[in-house]
Amino acid sequence: MGGLFNVRTLKKLFFVTAVVLVSTSASAQHPNLVITKTDVKAMQMATAKPGRFQTAYQSAKARFEAVLSAPMDVPVPKDGAGGYTHEQHKRNYQNMYQAGVLYQISGEQKYRNFVRDMLLDYAELYPSLDVHPKRKVKSQNPGKFFWQSLNEAMWLVYTIQAYDMVMNGLTEDEKATIESDLLKPVAQFLSVGQPSTFNKVHNHGTWATAGVGMAGYVMNEPEWVEFALYDLEKSGQGGFLKQLEKLFSPDGYYNEGPYYQRFALLPFVTFAKAIENNQPERDVFGYRDGVLMKAIDTTIQLSYNGKFFPINDAIKSKGTDTIELVHGVAVAYARTGETGLLEIADKQDNILLTGDGLKVAEALDAGLATAYQYKSMALGDGAEGDEGALVIMRGELGGEQALLFKPASQGLGHGHFDKLTWQYYDHGQEIVSDYGAARFLNVEAKFGGRYLPENTSYAKQTVAHNTVVIDETSHFNGNVETGNANAPSLDFFATSETGSVAQAHINTAYNKVSLQRTVALVNLAEVGQSIALDIFDVEGKSHHQIDLPLHYLGQIIETNFAINANTSQLAAVGTQNGYQHLWLKGKSTPQAGLAKVTWLNELNGRFYTQTSVVDGDEAFLFTQVGANDPNFNLRNENGFIRRVSGVSSHRFVSVLEPHGEYNPGKEYTLNAQSRVSALKISRQNELTLVELHIAGKAYLIAINGAQHVNSVTFSYQDQGFTSHDRLSVFGLNGHQE
Amino acid sequence: MGGLFNVRTLKKLFFVTAVVLVSTSASAQHPNLVITKTDVKAMQMATAKPGRFQTAYQSAKARFEAVLSAPMDVPVPKDGAGGYTHEQHKRNYQNMYQAGVLYQISGEQKYRNFVRDMLLDYAELYPSLDVHPKRKVKSQNPGKFFWQSLNEAMWLVYTIQAYDMVMNGLTEDEKATIESDLLKPVAQFLSVGQPSTFNKVHNHGTWATAGVGMAGYVMNEPEWVEFALYDLEKSGQGGFLKQLEKLFSPDGYYNEGPYYQRFALLPFVTFAKAIENNQPERDVFGYRDGVLMKAIDTTIQLSYNGKFFPINDAIKSKGTDTIELVHGVAVAYARTGETGLLEIADKQDNILLTGDGLKVAEALDAGLATAYQYKSMALGDGAEGDEGALVIMRGELGGEQALLFKPASQGLGHGHFDKLTWQYYDHGQEIVSDYGAARFLNVEAKFGGRYLPENTSYAKQTVAHNTVVIDETSHFNGNVETGNANAPSLDFFATSETGSVAQAHINTAYNKVSLQRTVALVNLAEVGQSIALDIFDVEGKSHHQIDLPLHYLGQIIETNFAINANTSQLAAVGTQNGYQHLWLKGKSTPQAGLAKVTWLNELNGRFYTQTSVVDGDEAFLFTQVGANDPNFNLRNENGFIRRVSGVSSHRFVSVLEPHGEYNPGKEYTLNAQSRVSALKISRQNELTLVELHIAGKAYLIAINGAQHVNSVTFSYQDQGFTSHDRLSVFGLNGHQE
Repeated sequence: MGGLFNVRTLKKLFFVTAVVLVSTSASAQHPNLVITKTDVKAMQMATAKPGRFQTAYQSAKARFEAVLSAPMDVPVPKDGAGGYTHEQHKRNYQNMYQAGVLYQISGEQKYRNFVRDMLLDYAELYPSLDVHPKRKVKSQNPGKFFWQSLNEAMWLVYTIQAYDMVMNGLTEDEKATIESDLLKPVAQFLSVGQPSTFNKVHNHGTWATAGVGMAGYVMNEPEWVEFALYDLEKSGQGGFLKQLEKLFSPDGYYNEGPYYQRFALLPFVTFAKAIENNQPERDVFGYRDGVLMKAIDTTIQLSYNGKFFPINDAIKSKGTDTIELVHGVAVAYARTGETGLLEIADKQDNILLTGDGLKVAEALDAGLATAYQYKSMALGDGAEGDEGALVIMRGELGGEQALLFKPASQGLGHGHFDKLTWQYYDHGQEIVSDYGAARFLNVEAKFGGRYLPENTSYAKQTVAHNTVVIDETSHFNGNVETGNANAPSLDFFATSETGSVAQAHINTAYNKVSLQRTVALVNLAEVGQSIALDIFDVEGKSHHQIDLPLHYLGQIIETNFAINANTSQLAAVGTQNGYQHLWLKGKSTPQAGLAKVTWLNELNGRFYTQTSVVDGDEAFLFTQVGANDPNFNLRNENGFIRRVSGVSSHRFVSVLEPHGEYNPGKEYTLNAQSRVSALKISRQNELTLVELHIAGKAYLIAINGAQHVNSVTFSYQDQGFTSHDRLSVFGLNGHQE
Repeated sequence: MGGLFNVRTLKKLFFVTAVVLVSTSASAQHPNLVITKTDVKAMQMATAKPGRFQTAYQSAKARFEAVLSAPMDVPVPKDGAGGYTHEQHKRNYQNMYQAGVLYQISGEQKYRNFVRDMLLDYAELYPSLDVHPKRKVKSQNPGKFFWQSLNEAMWLVYTIQAYDMVMNGLTEDEKATIESDLLKPVAQFLSVGQPSTFNKVHNHGTWATAGVGMAGYVMNEPEWVEFALYDLEKSGQGGFLKQLEKLFSPDGYYNEGPYYQRFALLPFVTFAKAIENNQPERDVFGYRDGVLMKAIDTTIQLSYNGKFFPINDAIKSKGTDTIELVHGVAVAYARTGETGLLEIADKQDNILLTGDGLKVAEALDAGLATAYQYKSMALGDGAEGDEGALVIMRGELGGEQALLFKPASQGLGHGHFDKLTWQYYDHGQEIVSDYGAARFLNVEAKFGGRYLPENTSYAKQTVAHNTVVIDETSHFNGNVETGNANAPSLDFFATSETGSVAQAHINTAYNKVSLQRTVALVNLAEVGQSIALDIFDVEGKSHHQIDLPLHYLGQIIETNFAINANTSQLAAVGTQNGYQHLWLKGKSTPQAGLAKVTWLNELNGRFYTQTSVVDGDEAFLFTQVGANDPNFNLRNENGFIRRVSGVSSHRFVSVLEPHGEYNPGKEYTLNAQSRVSALKISRQNELTLVELHIAGKAYLIAINGAQHVNSVTFSYQDQGFTSHDRLSVFGLNGHQE
């Protein structure tokens, strides 16, 4: 856990850097934000020799011809998000940036002229503008070009870089007009004009500080850099450094989850790069034990098969090839030379026309890429890393597996009520799934492209996840503030060749009910397969209905108990908190013993069996998403809910076992049936003993939750093994020394 | 349409070839079936130089080491399909074949010994065997190693080739034992021992004749070759040539559909290759205007994005990379040198260790592959090509599209009751879909891996397809014999740069109701998109309920009319003929005009809108597959049924329009809304006039169904165009001159 700067250190830092700043600015040359003069020279040389960079450069030039041939269009702001003027102003800043880069590399006047003319158009327009007509009523942060200042800040981040790249080709008059009528007023509007946004330790603040800070470097306003770094009062209570300190956990995890993490990353990486180029002595990349570099790497680690784990409000198709992470990987590779990053860059297949992009391109051309190392890890959540954790377990036995366990904190307004939920991936596919966000991004017909009503009524609710629901009520009674104030605790996490294990608990999701879950991904080398073990302990004080849903992607192949299927009529499982969206397709109460549900994931052609220890009182409800969905907004995915009623406590125990292969194309089916024949669990103090018989082998999995592992001993009463020598004792130490 | 041999020609051919046969057999050398001595020399040279062939050879050798190190296992037959002895005997013949090939190429004794020892084991076992214990009661065609003689014939096809490849390395005693105790008795059991199967003009007969005929070549039994070619009476009423004549249409279409066509192909190609190598003067590849070569090509044409069109009982994952077509493509390329076939071979990524496989490998190494040309075509169905047709339309405007129109004949027992149905594909995905077969191949828990009960109760029924259902009753009242006896008629088919059009009708699917459908895939160059036009005319004599279902893959985005969704309860649409398996999710009767249903295919991120002309009496029923499915055997796919009731006739008119793109990963959504603003239809004699307004353009699509196209004139009354000069007249001539 990296140390944090305390206030005294911060002030000292501020003093020193302020002195340096003045001298640096005085000798400023352009460009010198993300791209420097040195970068430009290297890029110019690279365009002459065949390779990825040359290809990227040539295709960028070719694509830009269409922009040059179209009439310039700087419309009077009118539309909200998705509307014409909104999209046109977005295109404009991207095009100015692109033209600036092409001007630097090629030296061709047409690119400089494009940026210059557009900036002059903007400079003519801007003084006439009031705040945007489509701003939200009573909004604290309207823009002028855009309905909200977040977009305005993004405009400045791109535009200031474009200006920096053409400055040396402009006359003094042109520069004076552009700076005094446009860029300086915009920077002031976004800083002193909106203190609450600018000073806020929030992703929107990061964009604003990045834009204003870079404007300070370019236009020789050193105080703006101070504002950007330390807030408008230079107090250090806000500003870019405070954001770096508060928005990421010490492990570089952003608590809204990876979908928002990659979005937040871009202004951090961009401004940090500009700081590094202008004031390397600030060592911004080393700040807080290198948290920014950790954040880049963590974003990659938070993915499976190229897609981000879809926790909280996440759209599933986002992955490591997003433009934000293209920038992140380039910066990280240029700084570290980690060749594993090149594998990610290769898959991104998007070479940036920057100095760092060139380094990536040349390294890929030279064949330096190595396999990126995905690791099992627990990422502490919260600014201090002590508000729960997000746990990733990886397995490679019998296929590339990932298990995500989420004893993480609520994650603000985009968080879901899914404490201690899990997801499971195998052979490239989601197997135990999370619905993600209910949203069709930018599809007007689907609630204007915004989050659908079903995002709140279903996707955020606890029952939409793979974790316990008490009395059909969501965690924290669905209250975001309560959720933000109460994180789960990670009891332990450990990983070794044997596998990975974690345990976490939360006592505040429900009144007077404690939830504790132990999850392990265990490598059974003799069987050539890893299995996922799940033990969920619920302890309450009065009688409850306790549900544990499991949402799977695939089709039921077999259950070892009869299901009373609802074949001619379907009704919803419940009436509220997400239950109203689940059709009840069938129900059963398997007799005591092992209850098995096998499904086939048709995308990877593999079978999965969940084997649960049941006591004869646990009911299985088979469900499909889609009830009370008049606009067909929800995906009709399947699941089953294990339910006990009228009890104060319950322990759910199960093993998830991938097996076999279904290949109708090549006409073979292998091991379609589960090989688990026994599963028992017992606890001795802090030791959990799991007896598992699978594929004719017998395992005793001993999970040690004690603080000190060296002196653990335990006794084990054999309850049915035919031969002692077939028993493999298999230790997972919760606390590694 | 190629000419057929008449009986006189056949007899003459028989006479001539019988003479040649004797002389050829007398000088036989080994191997000389699919692989010849010349092939072997070429393959031996190829193993010495780097390339695809060398790689395939080395990896085959490496893989075979595991077989060699395992104990030989020739079990006493006991199990049915999927059981242990069944699977082991399958592995055995494949391994013997593989070892024979490796022996020829490498000359290494261990491979010869493997084949020899296994054959001797089989020769010891065979005389002790009665018919298989798991044969069907009263079966006409049991095997001895296998429960049915189809597998026994497959065993012989592989094993006789293996024997041919090791013969020259065996002692006379060994050969005598193997031939007299095993191979000759097996060949006799499969021929004179089972005349009804052997003489049958059916796919099972093809395997038997191929095995027996090749056994005749190898063991110098020329009469067996005669039996194989002309049946046991040498009458020409059965046998391989009759099968070539009857089982394929003149266009090389096999009337069970491509899923069974590729399966049927292997014995045809294998035996034909052996005939060609032993008796080239028979010109078997030239037989019936080269129907076998046409059949290979047709099998490829019957695919989209590498998968076969899933008509009739088809499992969807089968495609052009199946082993049967790997053989077919190798043989076809070696004969024709068509470099388009190399693209298919390249995607198959499976180099055969045969002479033809070598030619493919060398051509691919030399970079000779060119794009395979998929064409729009009507494949005549039935032995004479006059029992309806299967129509493929291809489009490339705005994406790679395919439209399959099926006025084909029933296709025997695996056929579906889906006369005049259609399917539509775009951007790599199935959009308007066919359920295919309800089956989990070889998955024991799913009805023993056989066709599921729901295959009959749902997948074969008319309502599971995209064609008209009268009074909730399937075509031919679900009777296969009636179906086989009554094919639709193709009225016309034409294709040009403008697009493709076809019309077909059937008057026998229902009593006193005629069904006529006109389907076109029209290229609208100005819009940069093709659209699919569908006009379905139903004419009866009394009042009926007329349904036209459309099964789509995707999620509803928008309808331009309100749907009364069943949000809290679901019931089945009907009680029988497949309707009992459809949940009714919602219903609506849009007002007269254009009714639009837009869905998103999430796999390709594209939008599709079906725009229907409705009169205010047409109801839309939104459905999902899955009712009355107690074992969760069916995939829960969605559709909608257009329904009119109490009418004797109805015309359904609609346009399917692909549009836009949904890319949440890159955060853009384009053209999510349909651009069709008007659709009208009128008929003048044999001319169909369709007025279509789309994306601000106006088209008049004139479809001419007359026999002679040159003199067509028509008058057109403008019904609402704002400007005449925007009208593009667009002719599709049903009968090309």
